[in-house]
Amino acid sequence: MIDATNGLQGIIAADTAISMVDGENGRLVYRGHSAQQLALNHSFEEVAHLLWYGHLPSESELFALSEKLDAARQLPEYVVRIIKSLPKSADMMSVLRTAVSAMDATSWPPSVNDAIRFTAAFPVIIACRSASLSGLPTPAPKSDLGHVANYLYMLTGRLPDIAHVRALEAYLILAMEHGMNASTFAGRVAGSTEADLACSLTASLGAMKGPLHGGAPSQVMSMLEEIGSVEKAEPWLRSALESGKKLMGFGHRVYRTADPRARALKTVVSHHAGDDELFRLATEVEDIATRLLSEYKPGRHLYANVEFWAAVVLQAIYLPKPLYTPTFSVGRVVGWTAHALEQSSNNRIIRPQSRYVGPLPDAVE
Amino acid sequence: MIDATNGLQGIIAADTAISMVDGENGRLVYRGHSAQQLALNHSFEEVAHLLWYGHLPSESELFALSEKLDAARQLPEYVVRIIKSLPKSADMMSVLRTAVSAMDATSWPPSVNDAIRFTAAFPVIIACRSASLSGLPTPAPKSDLGHVANYLYMLTGRLPDIAHVRALEAYLILAMEHGMNASTFAGRVAGSTEADLACSLTASLGAMKGPLHGGAPSQVMSMLEEIGSVEKAEPWLRSALESGKKLMGFGHRVYRTADPRARALKTVVSHHAGDDELFRLATEVEDIATRLLSEYKPGRHLYANVEFWAAVVLQAIYLPKPLYTPTFSVGRVVGWTAHALEQSSNNRIIRPQSRYVGPLPDAVE
Repeated sequence: MIDATNGLQGIIAADTAISMVDGENGRLVYRGHSAQQLALNHSFEEVAHLLWYGHLPSESELFALSEKLDAARQLPEYVVRIIKSLPKSADMMSVLRTAVSAMDATSWPPSVNDAIRFTAAFPVIIACRSASLSGLPTPAPKSDLGHVANYLYMLTGRLPDIAHVRALEAYLILAMEHGMNASTFAGRVAGSTEADLACSLTASLGAMKGPLHGGAPSQVMSMLEEIGSVEKAEPWLRSALESGKKLMGFGHRVYRTADPRARALKTVVSHHAGDDELFRLATEVEDIATRLLSEYKPGRHLYANVEFWAAVVLQAIYLPKPLYTPTFSVGRVVGWTAHALEQSSNNRIIRPQSRYVGPLPDAVE
Repeated sequence: MIDATNGLQGIIAADTAISMVDGENGRLVYRGHSAQQLALNHSFEEVAHLLWYGHLPSESELFALSEKLDAARQLPEYVVRIIKSLPKSADMMSVLRTAVSAMDATSWPPSVNDAIRFTAAFPVIIACRSASLSGLPTPAPKSDLGHVANYLYMLTGRLPDIAHVRALEAYLILAMEHGMNASTFAGRVAGSTEADLACSLTASLGAMKGPLHGGAPSQVMSMLEEIGSVEKAEPWLRSALESGKKLMGFGHRVYRTADPRARALKTVVSHHAGDDELFRLATEVEDIATRLLSEYKPGRHLYANVEFWAAVVLQAIYLPKPLYTPTFSVGRVVGWTAHALEQSSNNRIIRPQSRYVGPLPDAVE
């Protein structure tokens, strides 16, 4: 028996050919390709194809995938009704989890077509709910737009700015996959009982909702708003650290260097931002926080993580904060489904043990 | 790094004071009490109180709990509408998962009142859906009936036979909790991100749906039906083993002796069954299969497990097979919620690692 009650730290739960998180060297690899390079040079559809099929698509493969995604953007009527019938108090992650759960059952083992169907549905569900809350009809998707442009189009009802599409696309690609994180792992545990893809995905969405996992970017944005200006950054951060507060968007359980996803996102934002005020504030906060963290917490290797720069991207494209975690899920569903396919191809039920620390029967009976 | 890619076998993922699964000695302990004894001598409500609060209830505590369960048997109207709006093809586990997901969000950390609310809802959801599929109105719960009697009452519209209630109650108590099984573990992983109880429970329900976890009793019943009679038992079982088939309802990953839950259920059934034909067939099949298994698979310690006798109980009370796994969940939700409470009281995110076995970037770029 091995004691891993510290959150399974240091335990290898699965072999995977989907991604390598190289924490020592600050590298993230998707099936043999640098995730940074993919985010800067490829589309959502191309990288999704890579994660599902194992290789970047040919022109005809890409066309076929786009057609399938397009077809799957039509939700069944009863799912639309359920999305609209949930109480106004339901947050978007609960809506997404409920709608995915309601979508017609698939069988086990899951197929790439199942993966495509759910991936296509995520943005439609979010847009449908957003429109319904505002009393508007949901804009129908446009067949001539890609997955990411369609998401922004359905959310706003307007053809999106190309710079916004590229920034969001880079974020979603970098959000797609990250080894055995809590949501991916929850999905693999559920799927390991030979449960269908709706089961794995609702488990993943459940884990993603928790602020320790999917909630960080909106907390980063709240921090940047509180800091407010470049001049106030150093005193604010120093006082936060003095009072033992955790800085949102810094540090990572795995990376011991800068988070490679943060660097890629910063590059993307810098291409489009020019001297945008938020970009300057974020750059300044990153520099000061990194310096102060090495002063206050020496040897801890705390750098800006993906959530820090994700917050800047999401704010720059005017996405409302309640959509940050659901949007993270629009990217991560590609990884979740890729893992469901991989788990099912070589399945064994995932069932650890617990150690009983309560009284024994003789003591009380 | 520890390689646990064999389904986390031998890995202790959590300390727990809720239950001890003693596989070597064939003991199952719920918070210091023998689960067998609890099943034979206590009510669903009493054992749920034990698992949630840590002790068996006083008379006034039991009354208070029963009142709360009773109040929570009223589902919100929109949840009822969702249950009825799912397509006829949706299986009951998908309906249960979707309805639980739709119930209003709770916050983190979860409370015992949250646990009570969801536990009370499970039978109502199942009964509501069953009635809707038959075109009948759902019978309202009766305040003077306990949790288990109410379940049978709402399912059938008739006051249930007391022997049926006791048999089902014993099964549900024995189904409540079993250490770090896949569904409980999936719930703890989801909850470890500080996600609310609806998230943990949908993750657990997802894992429970898989035939490797929650699906066994209906497969046992199919096997008993195929065998058909006492005379055909030995030739059928021998031929199944000769052709390398797995016998449903025998063997357990943890128990190396008879499954203590199976023994308790057999006791309960024998009290009420007299010389019922199914009971005689099951007893005979158990004896022959145990003998043949030690002959064909020596040293493997394969005995009847809880699913074997659960199938007999569920068939004896005329529960339709599609309700077997949902009914298992009506019991197990008590354990799931107890684990969510325990996990939140000393939380740490559960996040193992994966080992990359794909190509490196240099090889392809």
